[in-house]
Amino acid sequence: RQMVYESLDYEITESRVEMKERRKLTLKDHFRDVILRWVILFFIGIFTAFAAFAIDVGIKIISKYKFGFIRDSISRCTKHDCLSQSFGIWVGLDILLVGLAGVMVCFIAPIAAGSGIPEVKCYLNGIKMPEVVRLKTLVTKAIGVMFAVSGGMTIGKEGPMIHSGAVVAAGLSQGKSTSIRWLDTRFLKQFRNDVEKRDFVSGGAAAGVSAAFGAPIGGVLFSLEEGASFWNQFLTWRIFFCSMTATFVLNILLSTFENGNPGALSNPGLINFGKFEDMPYNLSELPLFIIMGVIGGLLGAAFNSINEKLTHFRMHHVFTPHAKLLEVLAVTVLTTVIFFTLIFFSDDCLPLGQSPESSSPLQFFCEEHQYSAMGALLFNTPEDSIKNLFHGPKDAYTSSTLAFFAIAYWALACITYGLSIPSGLFVPCLLTGASWGRLVGNIMASIFPGATWVIPGKYALIGAAAMLAGVVRMTISLTVIIIEATGNVTYGLPIMLAVIFAKLVGDYFNEGLYDIHIELKHIPLLPWAPPPVASHRLQAQDFMSRDIQCVRMLNRVGDIYRLLRTSKHNAFPVIAWHEDATVETNGLAIVQGMVLRQHLIALLKHRGYGHKIGNMVAKNELALDELTQDYPRWPKISSVDVPKEDYDMWMDLRPYMNPSPYLVQASCSLAKIFRLFRTMGLRHLVVVNKMNELVGLVTRKDLANIT
Amino acid sequence: RQMVYESLDYEITESRVEMKERRKLTLKDHFRDVILRWVILFFIGIFTAFAAFAIDVGIKIISKYKFGFIRDSISRCTKHDCLSQSFGIWVGLDILLVGLAGVMVCFIAPIAAGSGIPEVKCYLNGIKMPEVVRLKTLVTKAIGVMFAVSGGMTIGKEGPMIHSGAVVAAGLSQGKSTSIRWLDTRFLKQFRNDVEKRDFVSGGAAAGVSAAFGAPIGGVLFSLEEGASFWNQFLTWRIFFCSMTATFVLNILLSTFENGNPGALSNPGLINFGKFEDMPYNLSELPLFIIMGVIGGLLGAAFNSINEKLTHFRMHHVFTPHAKLLEVLAVTVLTTVIFFTLIFFSDDCLPLGQSPESSSPLQFFCEEHQYSAMGALLFNTPEDSIKNLFHGPKDAYTSSTLAFFAIAYWALACITYGLSIPSGLFVPCLLTGASWGRLVGNIMASIFPGATWVIPGKYALIGAAAMLAGVVRMTISLTVIIIEATGNVTYGLPIMLAVIFAKLVGDYFNEGLYDIHIELKHIPLLPWAPPPVASHRLQAQDFMSRDIQCVRMLNRVGDIYRLLRTSKHNAFPVIAWHEDATVETNGLAIVQGMVLRQHLIALLKHRGYGHKIGNMVAKNELALDELTQDYPRWPKISSVDVPKEDYDMWMDLRPYMNPSPYLVQASCSLAKIFRLFRTMGLRHLVVVNKMNELVGLVTRKDLANIT
Ligand SMILES: Nc1ncnc2c1ncn2[C@@H]1O[C@H](COP(=O)(O)OP(=O)(O)OP(=O)(O)O)[C@@H](O)[C@H]1O
Ligand SMILES: Nc1ncnc2c1ncn2[C@@H]1O[C@H](COP(=O)(O)OP(=O)(O)OP(=O)(O)O)[C@@H](O)[C@H]1O
Ligand SMILES: [Mg+2]
Ligand SMILES: [Mg+2]
Repeated sequence: RQMVYESLDYEITESRVEMKERRKLTLKDHFRDVILRWVILFFIGIFTAFAAFAIDVGIKIISKYKFGFIRDSISRCTKHDCLSQSFGIWVGLDILLVGLAGVMVCFIAPIAAGSGIPEVKCYLNGIKMPEVVRLKTLVTKAIGVMFAVSGGMTIGKEGPMIHSGAVVAAGLSQGKSTSIRWLDTRFLKQFRNDVEKRDFVSGGAAAGVSAAFGAPIGGVLFSLEEGASFWNQFLTWRIFFCSMTATFVLNILLSTFENGNPGALSNPGLINFGKFEDMPYNLSELPLFIIMGVIGGLLGAAFNSINEKLTHFRMHHVFTPHAKLLEVLAVTVLTTVIFFTLIFFSDDCLPLGQSPESSSPLQFFCEEHQYSAMGALLFNTPEDSIKNLFHGPKDAYTSSTLAFFAIAYWALACITYGLSIPSGLFVPCLLTGASWGRLVGNIMASIFPGATWVIPGKYALIGAAAMLAGVVRMTISLTVIIIEATGNVTYGLPIMLAVIFAKLVGDYFNEGLYDIHIELKHIPLLPWAPPPVASHRLQAQDFMSRDIQCVRMLNRVGDIYRLLRTSKHNAFPVIAWHEDATVETNGLAIVQGMVLRQHLIALLKHRGYGHKIGNMVAKNELALDELTQDYPRWPKISSVDVPKEDYDMWMDLRPYMNPSPYLVQASCSLAKIFRLFRTMGLRHLVVVNKMNELVGLVTRKDLANIT
Repeated sequence: RQMVYESLDYEITESRVEMKERRKLTLKDHFRDVILRWVILFFIGIFTAFAAFAIDVGIKIISKYKFGFIRDSISRCTKHDCLSQSFGIWVGLDILLVGLAGVMVCFIAPIAAGSGIPEVKCYLNGIKMPEVVRLKTLVTKAIGVMFAVSGGMTIGKEGPMIHSGAVVAAGLSQGKSTSIRWLDTRFLKQFRNDVEKRDFVSGGAAAGVSAAFGAPIGGVLFSLEEGASFWNQFLTWRIFFCSMTATFVLNILLSTFENGNPGALSNPGLINFGKFEDMPYNLSELPLFIIMGVIGGLLGAAFNSINEKLTHFRMHHVFTPHAKLLEVLAVTVLTTVIFFTLIFFSDDCLPLGQSPESSSPLQFFCEEHQYSAMGALLFNTPEDSIKNLFHGPKDAYTSSTLAFFAIAYWALACITYGLSIPSGLFVPCLLTGASWGRLVGNIMASIFPGATWVIPGKYALIGAAAMLAGVVRMTISLTVIIIEATGNVTYGLPIMLAVIFAKLVGDYFNEGLYDIHIELKHIPLLPWAPPPVASHRLQAQDFMSRDIQCVRMLNRVGDIYRLLRTSKHNAFPVIAWHEDATVETNGLAIVQGMVLRQHLIALLKHRGYGHKIGNMVAKNELALDELTQDYPRWPKISSVDVPKEDYDMWMDLRPYMNPSPYLVQASCSLAKIFRLFRTMGLRHLVVVNKMNELVGLVTRKDLANIT
C-alpha cells in the first residue's frame, strides 16, 4: 500500500548533462540566484500574510453576522418562548457554512481536509504527496477553513495557515501552476527541482506558523523540527527572514483593520495570548506544573487513541465523497446541539461589563444586565475564548462551567478532527487545555483562598500548553511558539516542563496525532532515529532488496521500454555486464551509476536514442532542458509511445546517469544507513560488495518498514 | 602549518570489535543512556549557571571596592588638588587586577585568552583544539575574566561564559579530567568518544549563551549555527533543556543575591537589556534602522580590519609569555589613562538623582549634587552602562560625551581584543554601538524636537545590534539573542534589519572577527558552503591527494611500525594487494576498509599481533576497551616501544578497520563532496574508480584549502 507514495529527489543527479549546464554557471549567475531566493521568500512572506489576513477577516465578518443574528433571535425568543426557532436558525446557518466547506473539500480537493500539518511534514520529510502544494488545494483550504470556523466547528484556522504558507511557497518559487496553465515564468527555471522547492516550502511553512501565532522563531524551529535534517546556515537565515516578513506584514494589515493604525503593530499573529506580565509564578508551583503536564499527556493520549479508532473506522466505512459530506453535516448538527444544550442548561449568569465577554454578550435566561458565562465561551471565536480564559478575572468562570465546557469541547474536537473539512488542531487543544487549566486554578483558589499568587489565567496557560503537547507531541517548536505567543520569556521554564511531561506521558501510550494519521495512511515517513537495538544489530543485507532490476550503459530501446512497462521502480542501477545479456539479467555485475525512471521516460519521449556505431550511439545528447522540462509532473510510461521499429535502436545512458551514487557494503549497520538517509535526504542507496558488484538496494520504504 | 590541527572523529568506526560491543546493547542499556544524557545535561546547565554566578558576583564585589576606593580618593583630591595621586591609585589597582589575569593566561593556559568563541566554534566544526576543553582552561578563564573585567578593560564576560559552558560540558560528560587524574567514573564510559562529547559540548555552549544573555533559544541557535550541521530533533531538544536549566538556575542565584528572593526571577542572564515596552517604533523609522545597520557594518569592518593587522603584528612580534604580559600591562595603563582623560576633560555635569547613575556617582569637577555623565559611563560595569544608555531619559547624555566615549571605547576594544587575557567581544561592541546609537537618537531629537516617538534608547538598541553584527557577523542566533535579551518580540524586525544590513555591508569588506582569527591561526575550518563557481567545476580528482599510504589486511608488525613512524597521517586505507608487496606499495588496489592511526598505535601498544597460521593470525582480538581506553589523549607512536623481535609477526587489521568507509568516484563534484563532509562530519573520504580501486583521498584540510 505504501507503493502509492513516491519520494522527492532531495539530491541533484550529477549526470554528465547536468554538470555540463552547472559548469556554465558564473559568479554572476550565482549572485542572481541568491538575490532571487531572497526576493521570492520576501514575497512568500507577504502572500502568506495576506492569506492569513483574508481568512481572519472573513471569519470575523461572517461570525459577527452569524452571532448577531442568532443572539437577536435568542433574546427575542427567551421572552416569547420560541427557542426552538432560534435553535433552528443556528443549526441552519451552521449547516450552510460548514456544508459549503465540506462540499469544496469532498468534491474539489480532498487533500485540503484536516490541518495539513501531516501533509507538510511528509513533504518536508521527502515524500511526494499528490496535490499537496497545488493552487486549488490552497483555495479550498483557505475558503473552506473560513466557512468551517465560522460555522462553529471545534477547529482552528492555525494549522491550515501552515499548509497555506507551504502552497504559497511552492507556487511562487516555481512560477507556474497546474491550475493556471498559461502562467509560466522562465527566469525561475533553475528553482524547478525538488531540492530548491523543498527549501522554499520550508520557508512557506515557517511563514505560516509565524503568521498564525506571531512566532517567527517558532516558525523556523517548526520547519527545522519537521523537515530539515540538514541544518544550513544560509537556508535557516532565509527562512527566518521569510517568517519575520510574514508576521510583520500581517501585523500591519491587522493593525490597520482593527485599530485603523498600521503603525500600532499590536497583532503579530492570528492568535495572540495577550501579555502575561503581571502573573509571576512561584518556584514551589513547578511541581504543580509538572502534574498538569502529566494530565495533559493523559488527556492527549486518550484523545489520540480515540481519534485513531475513529479514523480507522472512517477509512473503512466512510469513503465516498457523499458519505463524507453527510458525516460533516451530522457532526455540525451534533456540535450545535451540544453547544445549545450547554448554554441552555448552564446557570452561570454574570453581571455585564465586569468580566471578559463576547463582543455580542448573550443574556439568555439571565437577568437584565447579566450574561451567560457559558454563552460567552461558546458565542465567540475560539481565539477570543482562549484569551478570555487566560486573562479573565478570578471568578469569571465557575468550576462547573469550565468542567462541562472542557469535556464537551474535548469530545467534539476528537470527533471533528478527521472530517472532510479544513481543520486545525491547535485551537481546540489550547481551548480545552485552557479550560481545564483554569479549573485547576479555581481549585487552587479554593485551597489557598486569598493567596495573591493564585491567578487562574496562569494555570490556563500551562493547561493549554500541556494539552497541546499531549496531542501533537512536538517539543522545541511548540515550546517556542507558546513562549512567543505569550511574548514573555519568563514563562519558558514552566511551559517547557509541562510540554516535557505531557510528551513523556503521552509517548508512553501512543504517538502524536499527526504521526498516527501518517501511519494510518501508510506513508513511509522516516523517523528521526532507527529503532535503538536493531540499529546496531541489523546490517544492510538484512533489509535490502535483492533481485535488483538494472540497466546497462548501452541498452536496446525495446529493453528499456519493456523494463519501464513491467516495473514500477523509480531508479535502476547501471551495471557493466556482458553485452549480449538482456536487461533483466541480474547477478554480480559492477555498478557504474544509477539512472532515474523519469529520465528514462524523457529519453524515450524525446527519442534520445539512435543507431550504434562501434561503442557509440549516433545521437546527440538530450539537452538538460528536454530531460527536466516535465518537472514536477513526470509523464507516465503508458503515455509515451515508442514505435516498434525503434525497439532495436540503442540508448546510451552514460550521459544521464548519476556516476557516483551513494554506496555501502552489505555489512553496513542500520544505524549508519539510517543516518545517511536522514541527513543526505537519500532516495536510493546501492549495496555493493568489495568488488563494487551490485548485491542489493535500499530505499526509504525499506527503512520505514523496519520497526 | 595547518598540520598541527587534527580533526575529531564525528563518526563511529563500525569495525568488527566495535560492532561486537554494540550488538550487546539491549533496550535497557539504550534507555539508561538516554536518561543519563538528560541527567548530565541538567548538571551541565546547573554548573554553568554557578560558574556564571561566581564570575558575576566576583566582578561586582571587586568593582564595588575598586570604584569606591578611587571615588573617595578623587572626591578628596578634587578639593586638595592631588588628582595625580588618585590617578596613581587607579592605575595601580588596574595593573594589579589585569596583571593577575595576564599572568594566569600567559603562564598557565594560553588558550584561555580571548573570548573562546572561535575555539568553541572550531571544536564544534570538528577540529581537535588542544587544551580547549580542559579543566585548567576553565579555571584560568573564569578567574582571569573576573580580574580583567574588574580591572576596567574594555571587555565583557559573556564570550568567556560560552567557553566555560563548553568546558563544563566536556568535563561532566566524560567524568574524568587530565588535571584531576584520580577522578574517573566508569559508568560514563560509553560517552567517551568524539561524537557524544561534541553533542554535550554543543549543550554546554548553549548553556553558556543562555546564562550570559538570558537567552535559552538564542543559545540553542548559537550552537546550531556554529556547530551542528546535522539537525537532530532529540539532540536539539536536550540542548534546549540544558540551556533552559542554565538560565533558570542563574536566575534563582542572582535573584537571591540581588533581591534576597529566589522566586523573583528577575535576572535571567548576566546581561539584561531591561524592558522595551514603552518604546513603540514607527514604520517610517525602518529606513533609519537600515542606515544604522549600514553604519554598524562599516564600523565593524573597520574594527575587524584594524584588529586583523594588529593580530598579525602580535603573532610575529609578541609571542613570548613575558612580552605578552608586558603588552597586557601597557594596554591596561593606556586604557586607564584614556578613561581618566575623558572624565577629566568632559564637563557634562548632571543633577544627581534624575538620570541613571553609577552606584557610586562621581562628582569630580561638578558642583555639589551633580555628577559627571562621562564618569557614570566609565565608572560602572559595562553591563550597567549599556542598560543606562538604553533606558536613560532623553537628555541624560550630551552628544559630545557620547561621541568621545564611542570613539575611545571603539579604539580601545579594538586594541584589547587579542591580548592575553580572557576577553569577550559582545559587551564592548554593544556598548560602542549603544553610544553611537544614542548619538543618532540625540540627532533625531534635534531634528524633530518634541516628537514623542524619538526615544534615544530605541536607537541605542539598534546601534548596539548593528555594531555587534558588524563585528561578529552572526545572523540568526545574534538576532534571537538580542530579541530575548530585550524580552520583546516586537523589536524583532528592526533588529533583524539592522543585523542583515550590518552583515551585508561588513561582508563586502572582510569576514567576521572570529573567522579572521581562525584564519590567522590557519585552522582548517570548513565553511558552510563551498566556493560557488568552483563547487560545480572541480571534481574529486582535482583536489584529492594521490600517493596514498595504505596498509593491507594482514601486515607485518615492522611495516606498520615503520609506517607510523614515517607518516603523520591519521587514517590509512586498507587494501587488498599481492601478499609479498611491502606496506608502502601504492597503486591500483581494491579498497577493503579504512583504519585509524590511533587504533594502529593501540594495537602495537597492546600487542594485538601474533604468528601467522595459514591466513589467520594466532592472536585473540583486542577488546574494544583496550582499543579505546586512551581516549581522548591517544599516545604518540614515539611513546610505544615495539621489540625488534616482534617485527616479523603479523597484525590482522580486519577486526579493527571500518569496513564500509565513505567512497566517491574521481569525477564526483566538489559540491557533493563538500555537502557530504559538512553533513556527515567526515574526516576522510576515499576516492575510488569503478573497480573500487583506490585512486585518492580527500580530507577536510584538502577542502578547507580550496578558495
Ligand atoms: N530497481 C529495483 N529493482 C528491484 N527492486 C527495487 C528497485 N528499486 C526499488 N526496489 C525495491 O522495491 C521496493 C519498493 O520500492 P520503492 O517504492 O521504495 O522505490 P522507488 O519507487 O524506486 O522509490 P520511491 O518510491 O522512494 O520514489 C523496495 O523494497 C525497494 O528496495
Ligand atoms: N594515508 C594517507 N596517505 C597519503 N596522503 C594522505 C593520507 N592521509 C591524508 N593524506 C593527505 O595529507 C594531507 C594532510 O592530511 P590531514 O592532516 O588533513 O589528514 P589527517 O591528519 O589524516 O586527518 P586530520 O588532520 O583531519 O585529523 C591532506 O592533503 C591529505 O589528503
Ligand atoms: Mg515507489
Ligand atoms: Mg593531520
